[in-house]
Order: sequence, then C-alpha cells, then structure tokens
Amino acid sequence: MQFELTKEYIDQLHDHIEKSNEVEAFKMVKDLHPADIAEIYDELNVEEARFIHVMLDPEDAADVLVELEEDDRERFLKVLPNEVIAKFINKLDSDDAADVIGEFPEDKQEEVLSHIEDLEQAGDIVDLLNYDEDTAGGLMAKELITVNENWNIMTCLKEMRRQAEDLDEVYYVYVIDDNEVLKGTLSLKKLLLTATNRKIANIINTDIISVKTDTPSEDVANIMDKYDLVALPVVDTLYRLVGRITIDDVVDVIREEAERDYQLVSGITQDVESSDSVWALTRARIPWLFIGLFGGVIAALVMGVYEVDLGINPKMAFFIPLIAAMGGNVGVQSSSIIVQALASNSMGFEGIGRKLLKELGVASINGVVLSSAIFAYNYFFTESFALTMTVSAALFSVIIFASLFGTFVPMMLDKFKIDPALATGPFITTVNDIMGLFIYLMIARAFFALF
Amino acid sequence: MQFELTKEYIDQLHDHIEKSNEVEAFKMVKDLHPADIAEIYDELNVEEARFIHVMLDPEDAADVLVELEEDDRERFLKVLPNEVIAKFINKLDSDDAADVIGEFPEDKQEEVLSHIEDLEQAGDIVDLLNYDEDTAGGLMAKELITVNENWNIMTCLKEMRRQAEDLDEVYYVYVIDDNEVLKGTLSLKKLLLTATNRKIANIINTDIISVKTDTPSEDVANIMDKYDLVALPVVDTLYRLVGRITIDDVVDVIREEAERDYQLVSGITQDVESSDSVWALTRARIPWLFIGLFGGVIAALVMGVYEVDLGINPKMAFFIPLIAAMGGNVGVQSSSIIVQALASNSMGFEGIGRKLLKELGVASINGVVLSSAIFAYNYFFTESFALTMTVSAALFSVIIFASLFGTFVPMMLDKFKIDPALATGPFITTVNDIMGLFIYLMIARAFFALF
Repeated sequence: MQFELTKEYIDQLHDHIEKSNEVEAFKMVKDLHPADIAEIYDELNVEEARFIHVMLDPEDAADVLVELEEDDRERFLKVLPNEVIAKFINKLDSDDAADVIGEFPEDKQEEVLSHIEDLEQAGDIVDLLNYDEDTAGGLMAKELITVNENWNIMTCLKEMRRQAEDLDEVYYVYVIDDNEVLKGTLSLKKLLLTATNRKIANIINTDIISVKTDTPSEDVANIMDKYDLVALPVVDTLYRLVGRITIDDVVDVIREEAERDYQLVSGITQDVESSDSVWALTRARIPWLFIGLFGGVIAALVMGVYEVDLGINPKMAFFIPLIAAMGGNVGVQSSSIIVQALASNSMGFEGIGRKLLKELGVASINGVVLSSAIFAYNYFFTESFALTMTVSAALFSVIIFASLFGTFVPMMLDKFKIDPALATGPFITTVNDIMGLFIYLMIARAFFALF
Repeated sequence: MQFELTKEYIDQLHDHIEKSNEVEAFKMVKDLHPADIAEIYDELNVEEARFIHVMLDPEDAADVLVELEEDDRERFLKVLPNEVIAKFINKLDSDDAADVIGEFPEDKQEEVLSHIEDLEQAGDIVDLLNYDEDTAGGLMAKELITVNENWNIMTCLKEMRRQAEDLDEVYYVYVIDDNEVLKGTLSLKKLLLTATNRKIANIINTDIISVKTDTPSEDVANIMDKYDLVALPVVDTLYRLVGRITIDDVVDVIREEAERDYQLVSGITQDVESSDSVWALTRARIPWLFIGLFGGVIAALVMGVYEVDLGINPKMAFFIPLIAAMGGNVGVQSSSIIVQALASNSMGFEGIGRKLLKELGVASINGVVLSSAIFAYNYFFTESFALTMTVSAALFSVIIFASLFGTFVPMMLDKFKIDPALATGPFITTVNDIMGLFIYLMIARAFFALF
C-alpha cells in the first residue's frame, strides 16, 4: 500500500541499472508515487536517475522533478536540453512550474519559456515569476475553477467540467462577478446536494477569507492554520481573484520556517541535512564557530584586565564556567520564548516595557532560587566567604542581565523588521558569556576588597 | 474580510460587558469565526467570556471551545454543569469531542458522556478515547462518507446526500466492500463530471494511501506532507475503514512538534508561551538551569584538581571560557542536525559508524581552521608558547569530542526509543563544557611540562 525505501530495494535497482535491464528497473518504479521516486533519486547518481526518468510517464516525470531537493533538481536538469525541460514544465501546475523555472539564471529562464508549447501556461509562469517567493503571490497557483455569480448551477456544472480537466483536485469553486472580483466560494458538497436549476447566489458562501498577493508567506501560513483552511484565494489590490494557495504548499512553509528557526538557535547558518556533504555541513557550521571564537578571545582580554585579582585569588577562576554557562542558558531561554511568540503571532498586547517587567519577575525568582542554592553549596564547601558572596551576587546579576538582554534583542530586531531568530543561539550565548564574565570579575574585585 | 484583534476592540468589548450591554457586545462578535472568538477569550476573564458565550450560536459556541488553549478551556469548562458541557460536545466533530472529553478526569468523562443525547456521537467518542492521542487513532474523526463498491453513481449521490449533513466539508468519498474493507476513494471532481448511471468501479481510485490506527502521529504527518494529502483514511488490522484524518489536525501536530523541539534545544522543559504567567514561565525554565548549575559546580571541582597548575600559570584561566563555549556550540550544532534528520526521516542509509565518520570529517576541518586561527592570535599576542600550544591543541580536541558526542547521543537515544531531542540544548552544552574544561586542563599540564 505504501512504499518504504530500503537498502535492499536500492541495491536491486542499482543492479538492474548496471546491467542496463530497463524492463526490470521500470517494473520496480512504475507504480510508485512521484514523491517516492524522488526519494529513490536521492540515492542514485545523475546518470542512474536519468536511466529511470526517461521511462516514466511524462506527468509523473514532471512531478518527480518538483519533489526533488533544490540542489538535486539543479544537478539533474543541468544535463538536459532546454526543449526537454520545457516539456516537463508544461506538465506542471503553474506554481510548481514557476518554482522550478525561478531557480534558473535569467537567460535560461527565457530560453526554457520560449520552448513551452502551452502559451497560457507560459503566460501564467511569467506572471507568477513577478512575485516575491516569500509572499502569497509566490505561493499561489493560477489554476482554479471560477464561475460567475449570475449563472445557475447547471451552467456552473457545465463550465466546471470544462475547467476541471487541468486540475488534479478541486476543493472549492470560486465565484466572481463580471469584473473578476471575488464574491465567494461554492463547496462541492453543496453543489452535489442542490437542485441544478437554482441560482448560484442561493448556495454561495460569501463569508470568505482571502489574502493579497503581497501578504507574507508566514501570515498566509498563520491564517490557513488558524482557520483550518485547505485552500485560500489570492486577490490583487482591486480584489480581483488571481490565484489560490493550497494547504500542502503551506505545510512546506511551516516546516521550512520551523527548521530554519531551529537551525538558527543551534548555530547553523544554512539549510543543511545530515545527508549533505562534509563540505556543505562545514560551511553551514563554521561562521558561528568563528563568532564563538571571537567571543572567547574577548573573554580572555576581559580576564587579562583582572589578572591581578585572579593572581591573588586563584579560586575565583573556578566559578567562571558556571557563571558563563548560566548566562548563556538563561539568555537562550528568554530569546527563544520571544522568537516563538513573534513567529506565532501570540505576543498579546503587552508592549516591550511590560514584557521586560514580566521577564524581570521570572528572572528574579530564578535568580533568587539559583543563587541561594549556590550560596548554600559554597558556604559549606568553599573557604572564602568573599568568594561565596561573589558567586551568588554575580549569578543573580547575570541571570537578570541575560534574561532582559535575551528578551530585548529579538523584540528590537523585530521592530526594525529584522528576523528575530537571528538573535537566538550563539549570538545571545556569546554576548552573555562575555557580559557574565565581566559582571563576575567586577563584583569579585568589589567584594574581595569589602569582605 | 479578516478579523484583526486590536487593543481598541478589546477595550470596547470590555466596556460593553462591564455595562452589561448584551446587544452591543453580541454585535461585536456575532459574525466572527470561532477561532477569532477564542482569541478574544484569551484577553477576557472567565466571567466575561461566559457573558459572550451564552449568546453565541450553539455550533459556534462549541467550536470556540475547541479553538481555546487547553488550560483556558479547562478554566472555562470547570464552572459549567456537565449537562451543558454535554450539549457542546454533542455539536462537535467526533475527533474534537474526544479531545475535549479526554482532558477531563475519568469520572467526569463518564458523567458528561451519559448526558450526550446523540448516542452515535457518544459511541464514537468512547471508541476514539481508546486510542493513544499520539497515534492515527487519536487524530482521526469518525465522520466520513462511505459508499459501497457495488453501487452506481446515482445511488452513491443519494447516499451521500444523507450522510453529508453531519459534515462541514467533504474532500473524499471512501469506497468499501461488504466487509467494510477500504477499497478506494472517489474524488468529488470525478463524481461531478461523470454520468450518473455508471458504476462506481469505473471511477474509483484504488491507488490509495492509508494508515493503521496505531501509526504514530509523527509518521502520519510525514506521510500527509510527503504525498500532499488533504485527508488520510485510517484502517484497523483487518483493513476495515474506521476513520479519517484531515490535514488541519496534522498541521497542528507539525507545529507542536516543531515548537517542542525548539523549546528543548533552548532549555525549556514545558510548553509555555510568552503570554503565560510568571510562575508558569519560571517552572518551565528552572529545571535546566539547575542542571546548568550542577554542571558549573562540577566544573569548579575539576578546576580544583588543577589548582596548582592554575596557580603557576594564571593566564591559563583566560581561555577557559573560549574552550567551554566552543565545546558547547559545536555539540549543539551536531546534535541538532541529527535530531532534525531523525524527525524528518531523512537519515538515509548511513549507519551510526558512517555518520560518526562523516562528523569526524566536518569536525576535523572546523578544528584545523579554528585552532589555526587561535594559534595565530596567541602566537602574536600571548607570551607563553606552552599556552599557545595548549589552547590550540585543546580547542581541536574539544571540537572533535563535542562533535562526536553530539552526534552519538541523539542516535543512541533514538535507538532506545527515547526522544532524541532530549539530548539537545543544555544537556549537550553542560557535558561539553565540563569535558572541554577537563581536556584543556589535562593538555595544559602535559604541555607546560613539555615546552
């Protein structure tokens, strides 16, 4: 019923390809879903994938291309002539077609477009390429079924039969007026259950949610998620219907966003997967490590300033890892809560001031509890009372500072329209490490003079 | 067209409620989507929300309950008699009804169920409550349209009219045989476009993907995402159709999973939002901070062992923050890449050995580049050659160790069916901090004797 890719399967397929046994190789893939075939390509090299690809049904072959990872697709298409690429593009839904073509350099885009036979499809693609890919316009497809509000259901069904041929699946029929302005939707359920001589106006649902072409993808995802929508119509500034977004595209947006935020908080700068090359993985990881290294050098310089104090009380150094780690942990916690709230639009009406005040509350409780705990430990196990006092006071101060800083930075970034997720992870950790160290050494100098 | 919650809106609503002005208050909410009303409740207290709730259309009122956050719903329902709760439950889809009832203690569940008028609904809920909520059975709803494979399209349409009344929206019609075994689907598009005297067998799509009731939610999400499905039928061990899962429920699963992984990597142990209470936020954050504190104490003890060395070369302490931070950063990067690969099922066929070997490659490149950079810095700015050598050698070793450890731990957890995301964030950071320190001090002792 459902395909599961195994090592045995790939070995067998490899074997057939190696022996140029088209019949057996084709048997193995012909009934599979394009998404499964794309997964198989992942395990083959370009020549092997081509060996399979030429035998596929043209519709399937085109769909497989869409399902491939971007870099695999690029490698695969690079070896094909533009006419052949155009044939595949011709078979795709307009949104997928625009996505695939959008990855080409501009001169190649024109070349491929000039070879597309279906001029309506080519026109749709050109339209779609104009939109920023992170907006509703970039997500939408042009294929949809539209009916005029003045028709009756019979005309409507006739027209739908004509239009529906191009479409894989129909979830809604959109109703427009003579100026192409979106007026409402018809559900297929109601169409099925209503007598054919009635007017569309009788069964139209005018209570519709739509987005503009320039609505950001994140907002599109939030809207479809919130209202549990399967398809969402897209209108232009005159409220004319220009396309529709389906939930499967939005699921991809949600996944990609979540993955990106997750990678940022983990200090990874590019979209990588564990199956990528060593080189790709290194490139994605080294930038933040350099920033961490730079932070470490600053920390060493800060400590150089306090060298005399460290010389007099060498035990002071023992608690540096503790203070630095706690600053880092608290900062990441604070910033990630804000980043999630901003991403899911659940910030509520609290302004920056209120949020910081609340964070101060959380930080104070955490600070008191944790500094008391370390105070108790040091009181019994550390001889120097000045050090005991220093560690507790510094820990408390660092927790307060790191909490407020971790809350403040992503909120400010968001205010200036910069992605707040950039502030999470190594950035917050590095700054808090250094600040924590600085606070600790400052307090130590004061306390050792005092006690 | 689309509602946006503003502070002014809430202030005005507050005002109407305070003055007990039902007419004006109702005017403000009556045309809103249940998801919007739920958002409004978020800003009201229980009494204010009840003031609105009693005026809502019963269907809407029930849907609003489903859209509330779990703890808000609990607070809201606590004050209502079981008969009233049963009335709301009666209006809900079976999956939502089971989710709401499932949150009650067992005696309350029975009480509420005994008050549900529609016995079929009550039976469906009891069935659904048997399934683990993290499986396909826990996600599915029992409402679906089924037709027999032997009918013709006319009978089919007639039967659908009867069954469709209960359903908000119909995406697929499921075809079963006389034993209720799932045979295929009909698309509404095909039904609309085919002559009514033909047999269902002519237009059935038998190439269907289904899941068993005990398929984990994560797998359900991956399947629906991969194959771009809007609805997915659920079958029992005899392949009899027992329910269907819709994409909106799966979007929630995907979001929740992503949020959970994000929170774990940030050191937050419970599902919290920035709008939660200071107390809830503190409780979610303090457990990992205690572990960090514990790690810091261990670090202090490790340094105690090397006190003599630190006394002789106080500058050694300067690079402790650098080494610790780099170990932490590298470890989090490695573990998060593995956790993401495990979550999205994209590990490929590399075994643990191969993965570690690859990670060793990445770590070696990062290690060589970063230790060379810090070597160059120290060569010019640090007097002690022994320290220069120590820092570079320790940094290289720590990067190698942290990478392998960060890769190994989540893979092992996964092997033992423990959530690998538990290994990310503060756990990896804390262990790597301590190990990094230990490696650094060990190498320092050796090198200072040597150079």
